Amino acid sequence: MTHDIALVPGDGIGPEVMADAIPLVERVAAAHGVDLAFTEYDWGSERYLETGAMAPEGFLGMLADHDAILLGAVGHPEVPDHVSLHGLLLPIRKRFDQSVCRRPSILFDGVESPLRGYDGGDIDFVVYRENTEGEYADVGGREHVGHAHEVAVQSAVFTRRGTERVVRAAFEAAADREGRLTSVTKSNAQAHSMPFWDEIVREVGAEYPEVSVESLLVDAAAMDLVRRPDAFDVIVASNLFGDVLTDIGAEVTGSMGLAPSANVDPGGEHPSMFEPVHGSAPDIAGDGVANPLATVLSASMLLAHRGEAVGDADASAAGETLWGAVEDQLADSSAPRTPDLGGDAGTASVLADLRD
Amino acid sequence: MTHDIALVPGDGIGPEVMADAIPLVERVAAAHGVDLAFTEYDWGSERYLETGAMAPEGFLGMLADHDAILLGAVGHPEVPDHVSLHGLLLPIRKRFDQSVCRRPSILFDGVESPLRGYDGGDIDFVVYRENTEGEYADVGGREHVGHAHEVAVQSAVFTRRGTERVVRAAFEAAADREGRLTSVTKSNAQAHSMPFWDEIVREVGAEYPEVSVESLLVDAAAMDLVRRPDAFDVIVASNLFGDVLTDIGAEVTGSMGLAPSANVDPGGEHPSMFEPVHGSAPDIAGDGVANPLATVLSASMLLAHRGEAVGDADASAAGETLWGAVEDQLADSSAPRTPDLGGDAGTASVLADLRD
Ligand SMILES: CC(C)[C@H](C(=O)O)[C@@H](O)C(=O)O
Ligand SMILES: CC(C)[C@H](C(=O)O)[C@@H](O)C(=O)O
Repeated sequence: MTHDIALVPGDGIGPEVMADAIPLVERVAAAHGVDLAFTEYDWGSERYLETGAMAPEGFLGMLADHDAILLGAVGHPEVPDHVSLHGLLLPIRKRFDQSVCRRPSILFDGVESPLRGYDGGDIDFVVYRENTEGEYADVGGREHVGHAHEVAVQSAVFTRRGTERVVRAAFEAAADREGRLTSVTKSNAQAHSMPFWDEIVREVGAEYPEVSVESLLVDAAAMDLVRRPDAFDVIVASNLFGDVLTDIGAEVTGSMGLAPSANVDPGGEHPSMFEPVHGSAPDIAGDGVANPLATVLSASMLLAHRGEAVGDADASAAGETLWGAVEDQLADSSAPRTPDLGGDAGTASVLADLRD
Repeated sequence: MTHDIALVPGDGIGPEVMADAIPLVERVAAAHGVDLAFTEYDWGSERYLETGAMAPEGFLGMLADHDAILLGAVGHPEVPDHVSLHGLLLPIRKRFDQSVCRRPSILFDGVESPLRGYDGGDIDFVVYRENTEGEYADVGGREHVGHAHEVAVQSAVFTRRGTERVVRAAFEAAADREGRLTSVTKSNAQAHSMPFWDEIVREVGAEYPEVSVESLLVDAAAMDLVRRPDAFDVIVASNLFGDVLTDIGAEVTGSMGLAPSANVDPGGEHPSMFEPVHGSAPDIAGDGVANPLATVLSASMLLAHRGEAVGDADASAAGETLWGAVEDQLADSSAPRTPDLGGDAGTASVLADLRD
C-alpha cells in the first residue's frame, strides 16, 4: 500500500535531520512492504528571506491531498517568530483541524533523567494538547498605542467542539492505558474559560466511568512534572498549558531530542502532521550533531497513525519496528549518542547504527 | 518604631503556621527594637461556609490603613477556588495596586534539589511577576451555553502602566544583582499581547544599559528552569507565566515549603502583602507538620520592605536576622526538618529550634 506523505523539512536542523532520516524510514517501511511516496516542499524561513513568504500562495491546498505531513522544524534567527509560525506551522494545524496534539513523554531505558531517583523506564505519560484555539487564538489587539494609557488584549477562545475533541481523545487514550486522566486548568484565576473546560471534562467523563479523573491547576501540574512525573498516565490541557507541560515533559525524560508529536484531526478528514517537539536549533544547525531520534519517533507515529486510519497492518508494524529500534539503541550503552544525550556522535552515525 | 501589620492567617495550614510563627517574628523584631502591632482578621473559607462571605463587606477598607499585610494561605476543599480567591486574595492584590510580585528561588545550603548535579548554594534567582492583570484579568464570558456551538472567551489585558511597573522593578533588581534579566513571553503564538510586553522591555531597558536582557519563550523558560536553573539572575514575566515559573522554581530549589513572596505596590501608596507561595495544603492541615519557613521568610521580606519604605534600619536588620536564622538552620544537618524536607519534625519544633 502506498502512503502519500508531504515532507516539509523547514528550517535549521530540520532539513539536515530529515535528509538523513528519510532513507531509514523508507527502508524500514519497505521491509514491511509499505511504500512511502514523499513529496518534498522547500518551504520555510530561507524562502521567506528570499521571496517574502514562508510558502507559496495556496500551500495549504497543496498539502490537502496528501495522506499525512512530516515536518522538521520552523524558526530562524532572522525571521520574527510570529512570521515564521503564522506563515507555516500554525495555519497547517488550524486549516487541517488538527485539534489534538499527542505528545508522549517517556524516559527510555538507558537514558538519564535530570531528576534524582528516576531511572530509564520510570516515566511514561502522554499529553493531549488542544492544538487549534484556546490561548493561541488570533484574537485581540492594541489601543492607544504609545500613550500612557495604552492597553493590549489577547483573548483565549475555547469552543465546545474543540474542547470536546481533545478531551474525548484523552479519555480514549486513558481507557486504553492505565485509566487515569489528569485535566490541567487554571479555574481559580481564569474563571471565564477554565470552568467551561472543567464542565466538558465532567460531561465527556460520564461516558468513561472506568477512567479516574484528577484536576490540577497548571502551576501545580508544572511542579508535579518535576516532583512526581512517574505518577501521570494521560494529561489533557489547553494549547498553552499543553505547550509548557510538554516541554517540561521532554526535559525530565532526558532530552528534547527524543520528544515526538502528532497533530491529529480526530475526524480523519484532513491530513495529520507529525513533527519533533524540538525547534530549529539554529545554534547547532549545520554541525551535523542534531539528535534525529525525535524525528524518527515522529515518523513512527505517522506510520502507526496511517496503519490505524486505513487498516494497514503493515504500516503499523513498520511504525513499531522504528520505535523499537530507537528503544533498543537507547538501551545499548555502547551505541552512538548525540551530545544532547551526553555522547559525541553525529546525526548520521546515530542513524547508521539504527539502520544496522 | 511601630509597624502596624494586618494578619490574615486564612485557611488550612495558614492559621496553625501563623500562630506558631508570629511569636518568633515578634521576638526577633523586639530584639532589634522594632515593635510590630498585629491586628488579626479571621477571614477565609470557614467564614464563607458559615456566613456566605470570605470577609466582611468593606474588608479592603479595613486593610487600607495598615502598613503591610501578612497572609497565610487561602483555599478550602469545600469552597470553589474561584470563590475563595476572588473573595479575598485577588481583590487585595488588585485594590492595593500590588502589581509587582517578587519571588526569590534559592537552593539554600543544606537543602537537596530534586535535580541531579545541583547542591545547596547553586541556584539563586528571583522572579518578578506581574500581579494584577494580564491573563488573570476578570474579562471574558460564555455564549450559547450548552449548545454545540458554545464558546468561552477569556481575555488577557495588559496595560502599559502595569507592564512598565513590573518591568522597571525587575530592571532595578537586575541592576542591584548580577545585571542579567530574562524576559519571558510567548510572542510567537500570542501576537496581540506579547510583542507589546517585548516593546516595553526594550523601552525600559534603554534606561539600564548595564543590564543584559535575554528573551525566552515560556515553554523554553519552563524547560530551562529544570535544565539550567543556575543560569538565571532575574526573571520578569506576566501574571500566569510568573505563576507557573515560580512554582517550578520552588520545586527545583527543594520545597514549596521554603518559597516566600512579596506582593508590592511599587508606588508605595498602599500596603504591600507578604505570603508564602504554598497554598492551604488541606491534606496536612491540623497535623502540625507544615513547614513554617516560607512564612518566616515572607515575614523577613515584610520587615526588609518596611525598613526600606520608611528608612527604619532596625526593621531591615530584623528582617536579615530572620533570614539568616533560616539559612543557618537549613545548613545544619542536625536541625529539625519538616517532612517536605525529608525530616520528621513538626512545625513547632522547627520554630523552637529557630528561636534558640
Ligand atoms: C513554535 C510554537 C508556536 C509551538 C507552539 O507553541 O505550539 C511550539 O512551541 C510547539 O510546542 O510546537
Ligand atoms: C491561588 C492562585 C490564584 C495564586 C495565583 O495563581 O496567583 C497562586 O497560585 C499563587 O501563585 O499565588
